[in-house]
Amino acid sequence: MSSSPVLDATHDPRRRSWVPVPPGSDFPIQNLPYGIFRCGGSPPRVGIAIGEFVLDLATLDAAGIFRGTPLDGQPLFERASLNPLLALGGAAWRAARRRISDLLDEASPELQGNERLRDAALVPQASATLMLPVEIGDYTDFYSSREHATNVGVMFRGPDNALMPNWLHLPVGYHGRASSVVVSGTPVRRPCGQTLPDGAAAPAFGPSRQLDFELEVGLFTGPGNALGQPIPLAGAHEAIFGFVLVNDWSARDIQKWEYQPLGPFLAKNFATSISPWVVTLDALLPFRVAGPRQDDPAPLPYLSESEPWSFDIALEVWLKTARMGERARIARSNHRHLYWNVRQQVAHHTVTGCNLRPGDLLASGTISGPTKDSRGSLLELSWRGTEPLALPSGETRTFLEDGDELTITGFAAKDGVRVGFGEVAGTVLPAHP
Amino acid sequence: MSSSPVLDATHDPRRRSWVPVPPGSDFPIQNLPYGIFRCGGSPPRVGIAIGEFVLDLATLDAAGIFRGTPLDGQPLFERASLNPLLALGGAAWRAARRRISDLLDEASPELQGNERLRDAALVPQASATLMLPVEIGDYTDFYSSREHATNVGVMFRGPDNALMPNWLHLPVGYHGRASSVVVSGTPVRRPCGQTLPDGAAAPAFGPSRQLDFELEVGLFTGPGNALGQPIPLAGAHEAIFGFVLVNDWSARDIQKWEYQPLGPFLAKNFATSISPWVVTLDALLPFRVAGPRQDDPAPLPYLSESEPWSFDIALEVWLKTARMGERARIARSNHRHLYWNVRQQVAHHTVTGCNLRPGDLLASGTISGPTKDSRGSLLELSWRGTEPLALPSGETRTFLEDGDELTITGFAAKDGVRVGFGEVAGTVLPAHP
Repeated sequence: MSSSPVLDATHDPRRRSWVPVPPGSDFPIQNLPYGIFRCGGSPPRVGIAIGEFVLDLATLDAAGIFRGTPLDGQPLFERASLNPLLALGGAAWRAARRRISDLLDEASPELQGNERLRDAALVPQASATLMLPVEIGDYTDFYSSREHATNVGVMFRGPDNALMPNWLHLPVGYHGRASSVVVSGTPVRRPCGQTLPDGAAAPAFGPSRQLDFELEVGLFTGPGNALGQPIPLAGAHEAIFGFVLVNDWSARDIQKWEYQPLGPFLAKNFATSISPWVVTLDALLPFRVAGPRQDDPAPLPYLSESEPWSFDIALEVWLKTARMGERARIARSNHRHLYWNVRQQVAHHTVTGCNLRPGDLLASGTISGPTKDSRGSLLELSWRGTEPLALPSGETRTFLEDGDELTITGFAAKDGVRVGFGEVAGTVLPAHP
Repeated sequence: MSSSPVLDATHDPRRRSWVPVPPGSDFPIQNLPYGIFRCGGSPPRVGIAIGEFVLDLATLDAAGIFRGTPLDGQPLFERASLNPLLALGGAAWRAARRRISDLLDEASPELQGNERLRDAALVPQASATLMLPVEIGDYTDFYSSREHATNVGVMFRGPDNALMPNWLHLPVGYHGRASSVVVSGTPVRRPCGQTLPDGAAAPAFGPSRQLDFELEVGLFTGPGNALGQPIPLAGAHEAIFGFVLVNDWSARDIQKWEYQPLGPFLAKNFATSISPWVVTLDALLPFRVAGPRQDDPAPLPYLSESEPWSFDIALEVWLKTARMGERARIARSNHRHLYWNVRQQVAHHTVTGCNLRPGDLLASGTISGPTKDSRGSLLELSWRGTEPLALPSGETRTFLEDGDELTITGFAAKDGVRVGFGEVAGTVLPAHP
C-alpha cells in the first residue's frame, strides 16, 4: 500500500505506437488517458485517447482482449462513467495500462494486424462526442496555492494579514457542488444573484458583473476508504486514479456578499468545467517533483511529506473574446507551485474518518505562481479590477464578458515525451433576462 | 406548477386503518412515510411505515396493486433507494399516496381481505432493518434559524455584530459532505483533527474535545431542474419530496481553527445522521404555518414569500450517557422557528441556475428557538462550555462524551392526528487511538 510506485516499460520514452501520433500531440502511447465517448446514437462507453483517435475499450473487451487480466469479465467499459474502473484500485489500473500499452506498441501485431477489430476499435476523435467521464460523488475544492491565497489575502485584508493563521498548517478546503460539474465545451450561463453594490446599504439582484475563471487541476479518487478509517499520507497516492483540468467558474461579487461565515455557495454552484480525458497518476509518475519547502512551520506529523508528490505540469490559460479571431494566452502557471500536495490533501480530508468513494473529485484550488503572469484568475490578473488586462484585439478585461471563451490547457513534458490533458473550455452565455 | 396544494381524503383526521396503530404512534394512515428496509438476507426494498409495521411496496407492486396508476410498470420499489420514486414528481407521489391510503383504509377489503398478500406485504418493523433511504447526490446545509445564528454570533463576535450583514437578506448556506450521511443507529466515531489550544501559538493534533450535535430537519428534492434554469419560489414546493430529521454532528474545536475563510470542512465531514423514514411534504400539508415576519428588511422579490410554508413540527433532543438508565430531554424546539422557509431555500439555491437532482439533501441548519431550552446544539445549551448542562444522573455536559447517545425526535400533531418522524439516534464511539 505505501510503497512508492516505480516506472516500467509503459513509461519508456522510446516506446512508439503503430497508431500515428502527430508531433505535439497530448496523447502519445506514454499517456493513455481515459474518457467516456459516444458516436452517433450509440450508447456511451469507455475509451482511451491515442494520437487523434479514441481506442474503444468496450469493443476490445468484447473481443476478449482483457482475458487473463483483473479486468476480464467485468462490466467496466460499456458504461457511461469510469466509476466501476475507479472502484477496482491500483493493481487493476496498472494491469490495464500495461495491456493497452502493449497492444498499441508498434512492435505488437496483435491488434495492429487484426484489421477488422482495429477498424472497429479506433474511432477518430473528430467523430466522437466526449462526455463527463465520471459520475461525481462529492466534489471538494482545496485552496492549496500559497501565491493565490496570498494574492487574495493582500487584496481583501492587506499584506500584513494576507494568509490566515491556519493556512500554513493545513490544506484549507471546502465542499463544492457536484451536480453542476460539466464537461469541456458546455456553455456557461452568467449567473444571477445578490450582490452589495459599492456604497449601497442593501443588496441588489441581477446578473453577476464579476464573473471569473479559476485555473485548477482536479483528481479523481479510486476505491476510497470506509467511514471512520483515515487514509495515511504514506499510502494516499494509491487513492488517486488520475487528473483533469478544472475551471472553477466564480462570481466574485456574489461571493463577496454571501461567503461570511460559511464560505462560497452560490458564487460557485452554477458551473465547474473539467477536461474530458482523465490522465492517470501512473502516466504522470515520470513528472513527479518536490513541492515548495515546508519547514516554516513544519506540518504536523500526519501531514509531513518526505517524497516528491508534486507534478511538473505546465498550465496555460487562453481567452478568446467574440471579436477575436484566435485565442490569446493570458496566464501560465504550473502544478508544481502548489504548497500542499495531493497526498497531503487526501490525508487531511480523511483524517477525521471522512470516507472517499470512487469518483470523488478533489480540486487543487486556483494555481497561481510567483510571477504576475502566472496568476490563475482574473481577480488576480486584473488585481481586483484595478489593472485591466490588455488583449491583442485592443479590448481589455477585468472580468469575463458575455461571449468570452476561456480555455485552460496543460501538459507535462520530459525526455521528448509530452503527456497532455487536452483542454477545458467554456463560453460565457448572457444571463437570462 | 405554482398552485398551492390542497388537502384531500388522505388527510382526513377521521380516516382509520385496518392495520393497528397504537396510541401515540408516529405512523397513522395520515402519515405514510417512505423508507428502505431489508429483512434477513433479502435485498433492500421500498416500504411505508404504518403503525408498527412496514408495508412492503415491492410485494404489492408485484401483485399488481399499482396497475392503472403512474407508478405501474416502473422498477420503483425493488430498489435500494427512493431515488427513482423521487425522480417522478408530484403527480406520481400523490397518486401513490391516494392508492396506499385507500388500500389501508379500514373500509377497504382489497388488501385487508387478501390474507396471503396481506401477510406477505406487512412486515413487523421489529424484524426489519432500516437503511439509508436515499442515494444522496449533493448535500446542502443552510443556516436558517435566526436564533441559532444570533446565539453563535453573540458568542463569537459579541451582541453588536451577532448577525452578519447578509443574514437577513438571504438564506446563508454551504455545501456539506454527502458520502458520510448515515442512517439513524449508526455509531459515530469521535474525529481526530487539528485544533488550536487556548493560548497556543501552533496547532495540535488529536481527538476533538468539543463534539456537538445540531438539531436540524432536512428535505429531499424531487425531479429537480436543468442546469441554468432556476426554480421560482412560487413553485418551489413542487421540488420537495419529503423531510427527515438530521443530526449534523460538529467538532467545534476543529471548526474554529479551520473555518476561515472557506467555511466548515473537516469539522462536519465525518458524519451526518438522518432518520430512516421520509415524511412526505404531502403528509405535512395540514401542519403548514406562517414563519417569522420578514419586513425588516423585506427580502428581494425572488425570495418574497406570501404563503405559509413553515411547518409546526415539534422537535426534541434527548441525551443518554453510558451511566444513565433512560434518556433525558435536553432541548425542545420547533421547525416553525426557522426564519427562511423551504421554498426560499430552494429558490435561492437555484437562482444562479444551479441544478438540483432527485435525492439531493437540503438541511435547515440548527433550529434554535427563542428560549434557553429551545437551543439546538450543546454549543448554545452550554453557552460555549460556560454553563454546563446538568443531567438527571448527576453528570454534567458541555460537549458530548464517548458513550453518549444523542437522539432527535419530531412530530406534527393536530385534530388528533400525529404525523411523526420516528427518530435519529447515534452513539459516540471513542476516537481511534
